[in-house]
Amino acid sequence: MINQLTLIGVGLIGGSFALDLKQRGLVNTVVGVDVNAQNLRDALALGVIDHAHTEINAASVGAADLVLIATPVSTLPEICAALTAYLSPRTIISDVGSTKQSALNAFRTHLPQHFAYCVAAHPIAGSEKSGAVAAYTGLFKQKKVILCPHEQQDSGSLKKVETLWQAIGAEVHDMNVAEHDAIFAAVSHLPHLFAFAYVHQMLDNPKGTEYLKFAGSGFRDFTRIAGSHPQMWTDIVLENRDMLLKLLSEHLAQLAYLQTCLHNQDVEKLYQYFAEAKQLRETWGQSH
Amino acid sequence: MINQLTLIGVGLIGGSFALDLKQRGLVNTVVGVDVNAQNLRDALALGVIDHAHTEINAASVGAADLVLIATPVSTLPEICAALTAYLSPRTIISDVGSTKQSALNAFRTHLPQHFAYCVAAHPIAGSEKSGAVAAYTGLFKQKKVILCPHEQQDSGSLKKVETLWQAIGAEVHDMNVAEHDAIFAAVSHLPHLFAFAYVHQMLDNPKGTEYLKFAGSGFRDFTRIAGSHPQMWTDIVLENRDMLLKLLSEHLAQLAYLQTCLHNQDVEKLYQYFAEAKQLRETWGQSH
Repeated sequence: MINQLTLIGVGLIGGSFALDLKQRGLVNTVVGVDVNAQNLRDALALGVIDHAHTEINAASVGAADLVLIATPVSTLPEICAALTAYLSPRTIISDVGSTKQSALNAFRTHLPQHFAYCVAAHPIAGSEKSGAVAAYTGLFKQKKVILCPHEQQDSGSLKKVETLWQAIGAEVHDMNVAEHDAIFAAVSHLPHLFAFAYVHQMLDNPKGTEYLKFAGSGFRDFTRIAGSHPQMWTDIVLENRDMLLKLLSEHLAQLAYLQTCLHNQDVEKLYQYFAEAKQLRETWGQSH
Repeated sequence: MINQLTLIGVGLIGGSFALDLKQRGLVNTVVGVDVNAQNLRDALALGVIDHAHTEINAASVGAADLVLIATPVSTLPEICAALTAYLSPRTIISDVGSTKQSALNAFRTHLPQHFAYCVAAHPIAGSEKSGAVAAYTGLFKQKKVILCPHEQQDSGSLKKVETLWQAIGAEVHDMNVAEHDAIFAAVSHLPHLFAFAYVHQMLDNPKGTEYLKFAGSGFRDFTRIAGSHPQMWTDIVLENRDMLLKLLSEHLAQLAYLQTCLHNQDVEKLYQYFAEAKQLRETWGQSH
């Protein structure tokens, strides 16, 4: 239970977190800070937030028990720098970004006095939709939330953040920050790059738009994530750049192997390749 | 309305076609021919077929009004060659494969006397599931079916096949065969290759299985098609090899562009690339 949550960035993730806490009576007041005035009006109208501000200042963050930063990850340094003048000594800061080394760097650099109370968090939930209008209760039910505690972490702050996520149905895991970024480069950031690249290939094909009239359910599911928020994903892929460049090289080797198999019309190797992939995907699907 | 349908390959597509015709009283008898005895038992038990055969012979195809070949596309030549001795003069032959130049080649080469009555067809429907147990009524409702009429096409056969697909809810389009193969290389075969390649990359990663515990809904949708039938897809990618090699080269250029943007930390170009892809995907999504 907290008295005031200040949400910086009132979108799908932050908004859904606020709605869940409200529904369970775990927060008295939600203050929303957003650069988009229309988004704030939507958030007020939908009951996602109780008060709206367009700036970080004493009124918006001074009385917060928890400040949750839920904006594209590149904005963290600037937001942390803006927060520092207004934070109460024990206000907990947390975030929801998909890259966690960059989050800890922002906290460490721009909130050095407050670093112990900064908790790096990543809820594994979302969709290709964005904005306060996309927020809904129950988004985090049975979803994983990764926390990356750091060397100066205040244990009470960590516990509080963990407890709030658990209270709204999430399954919380602690993880080393480098491991976090390696895992999500592989299972999330990389397929987003591929989906964007494939859809862009259709865009660059002079007949692509015509061809897409005949695309079916395979195309629909494969490319759903190419509808994701461009700024959010620009930030993520740049923050996790080194890992993604390594994985892209590995992927080029996979495609080169397929090119060779196709060139050589190698039925057996193609069959084996597809069958092995199918098996891994099915094994995964049985437990997810 | 036809008296006897003989289904060669009693799987998701052929089985669902049979179930739909039966439900609407458009066929009296469905004969199933399959190399998999268990699959035939399932098909009989589920009412997908009325009679089961493990071979193409006079009993299984001699009295058929329509023989629908619904097996992996590489088997078409062999099946057509086996059919030739048993076909009644006016039996219509059709198929459901994802590559249509190869189908017309098989018909032309192995059923030369019967070529006029061979109708190349491709229903744009399916899933990663396979076998008679996966068949269900309504699969083709509001789905597209592409017909590729050829230079010697008997118009009555074409019309009959068109009418049957329309009767079970499909939207039938006629298309030039080369155009068909180019379109489906781009909108279907290529993303299947990518999904297999990406899942195989996870398989080749020593920590891949561990990492996959944290994969979410993005991974799930992106890789659904990597659960597809390996033999079916080996056949398809080989039959449409030239087109796929061309598209793979184009895709490597897209990935090289992304590598350069990442190397250079080019925020604006990445944003523009993702935003353009998102826009195309959203436009498509609004009409599909």
